[in-house]
Amino acid sequence: MNFAPLFQPRTLAVVGVSLTNDRHPANVIYMKNKLRQQVEVYPVNVKGGILQGDPVFARIVDIPNKIDLAVIAARAEFVPEIIQDCIQAGVGGAVVVSGGFAETGRQDLEKQIVSLARAADFPFIGPNCLGIYSPPYVDTFFLPSERIVRPDKGKVAIVSQSGGILVDLMIKFAEEGVGLSMAVSIGNKAMVRELDLLQYFEDDPQTQVVTYYVEGFREKEGREFVLAARQCSKPVIVFKAGKTPAGTRAVSSHTASMAGDYEVFSSVLAQYGIVEAKDEFELVSFCESLSCYHRSIQGRIGIITGSGGHGATAVDACASHGLSTRCFPSRKRCHSRN
Amino acid sequence: MNFAPLFQPRTLAVVGVSLTNDRHPANVIYMKNKLRQQVEVYPVNVKGGILQGDPVFARIVDIPNKIDLAVIAARAEFVPEIIQDCIQAGVGGAVVVSGGFAETGRQDLEKQIVSLARAADFPFIGPNCLGIYSPPYVDTFFLPSERIVRPDKGKVAIVSQSGGILVDLMIKFAEEGVGLSMAVSIGNKAMVRELDLLQYFEDDPQTQVVTYYVEGFREKEGREFVLAARQCSKPVIVFKAGKTPAGTRAVSSHTASMAGDYEVFSSVLAQYGIVEAKDEFELVSFCESLSCYHRSIQGRIGIITGSGGHGATAVDACASHGLSTRCFPSRKRCHSRN
Repeated sequence: MNFAPLFQPRTLAVVGVSLTNDRHPANVIYMKNKLRQQVEVYPVNVKGGILQGDPVFARIVDIPNKIDLAVIAARAEFVPEIIQDCIQAGVGGAVVVSGGFAETGRQDLEKQIVSLARAADFPFIGPNCLGIYSPPYVDTFFLPSERIVRPDKGKVAIVSQSGGILVDLMIKFAEEGVGLSMAVSIGNKAMVRELDLLQYFEDDPQTQVVTYYVEGFREKEGREFVLAARQCSKPVIVFKAGKTPAGTRAVSSHTASMAGDYEVFSSVLAQYGIVEAKDEFELVSFCESLSCYHRSIQGRIGIITGSGGHGATAVDACASHGLSTRCFPSRKRCHSRN
Repeated sequence: MNFAPLFQPRTLAVVGVSLTNDRHPANVIYMKNKLRQQVEVYPVNVKGGILQGDPVFARIVDIPNKIDLAVIAARAEFVPEIIQDCIQAGVGGAVVVSGGFAETGRQDLEKQIVSLARAADFPFIGPNCLGIYSPPYVDTFFLPSERIVRPDKGKVAIVSQSGGILVDLMIKFAEEGVGLSMAVSIGNKAMVRELDLLQYFEDDPQTQVVTYYVEGFREKEGREFVLAARQCSKPVIVFKAGKTPAGTRAVSSHTASMAGDYEVFSSVLAQYGIVEAKDEFELVSFCESLSCYHRSIQGRIGIITGSGGHGATAVDACASHGLSTRCFPSRKRCHSRN
């Protein structure tokens, strides 16, 4: 799959803009890209008309310019037809924001768009997702600009089945000063999956660490992902939901994912040297440290601190993770007071 | 021990103020109490003189007013004499900020001040500590006002052997909106220990939760503390350093504490229903929840969230802690999308 038109698009069509409701997700996406991103944006609605002074195109095929990326935020039952339009117009790829597919029992509709897309080698992200955050090119997250917290540009790529977790991770990255290369919310991941994006980010010179929030894998998909992550030249960090029977039911209703046997998954990750974060706080810490140090630290660690209590707890943390701490030479003691 | 003069003092003597260095810990404590706390403050230095326009008393016995609390920030070898002065003057108690006692090998000096104090039933906090943070009465922490982060007044009392950990917990309390009733940094805890303060806070109507950062206990002290905590009518939360051999060496040089066998301590806490926080983040969360809910939650939990990913991870967290989550009735699914 060629992801360049999706992640560095020059032109963007937003399908499903409302002429009457500026808070519609499609309108939010249209406006934030028009005002803040480099991409050239075209609004699409089957009724045509005028939006904020710009002509609205009835169909993607009517847009006079070649479109790199289409964001589809129309009702689920209209999505197959819109994807056909995209293919016909030679669009490079799509983000399907709309929900109402496998996660609500409409597996048929999801299979239909996957078949169409596969037959035409047309990559799409989603459905049921926020899509792509790739400034300065494009930002398809349907959050108003004033509500999104933007981490600095940096070395970590995030791929998440949950848009909510992804947006929360971006806040945590910003708070902790961890830099982001790109973020992709893949939702039901009907076509573009973790594995495809691993291959993309391995080749992406902006990205040095790839991290995932995963709800579940289809049969064999988890195995393929782990094998690829093991071979990947960049650190891979995985945070998994659906660790318990109740959590498994929750992810199934969220992104129609099968969580699988978590204990097996977790031990395979450990066996293959893929980093597992047990929660989002570990994920942020691991991203921060692995974007600075790509390999395990060898040798003994010295701790310099203004607080003896923090020194003691840091020594405990090192020792409990198999790292030895060095005692500095001193007249009477090796750790400072307070 | 009567802690009222220490925790709600009306008069405060600060012993060891410098006439030439306003950044001396004693000067910091003197100024912040003079400017910001209700207590009436008197500066003491053996040389006498004038500080910021106020007369400096050569000895505590020279102060014309009865003193409730003395903060001692003089060199360790002068502390025994100053404590004798306090006793002679009928002072209610002291905070010994000075280091240079058991933690640097001067067990003799520490024993000397304990003998003096015990013989006179004179309670002192420390040595090697920040002391008492008890607004609006008094604040003996030798941190300039502009550098200290103040949580809201609230229900949690913190007792810590480390001043650094305590100040960091206050920042975390402020960030998370957890309210503080009082904070006490006990350092080497030569006289006033965790157990004494547990008895005080159990009777304190402002305090509903008592939390501890502990480096170590002397022989039998840990056992006495755990037995008292088990009987305490308020939730007790313990965060322990010195969990590993290296951490044990670190706490010994910090507050001269013997860390003891952590595994035994931890299992005794669990057995007696005393809450153990494995790190400072758990400590803050436990303080927040236990200051709202004093008993275990019964029944099944419902989760309402705008993000399906957070729903799934919350369900996982509940299930992994033995709490069952309730599935809301709905047409097709029980958890929301995104």
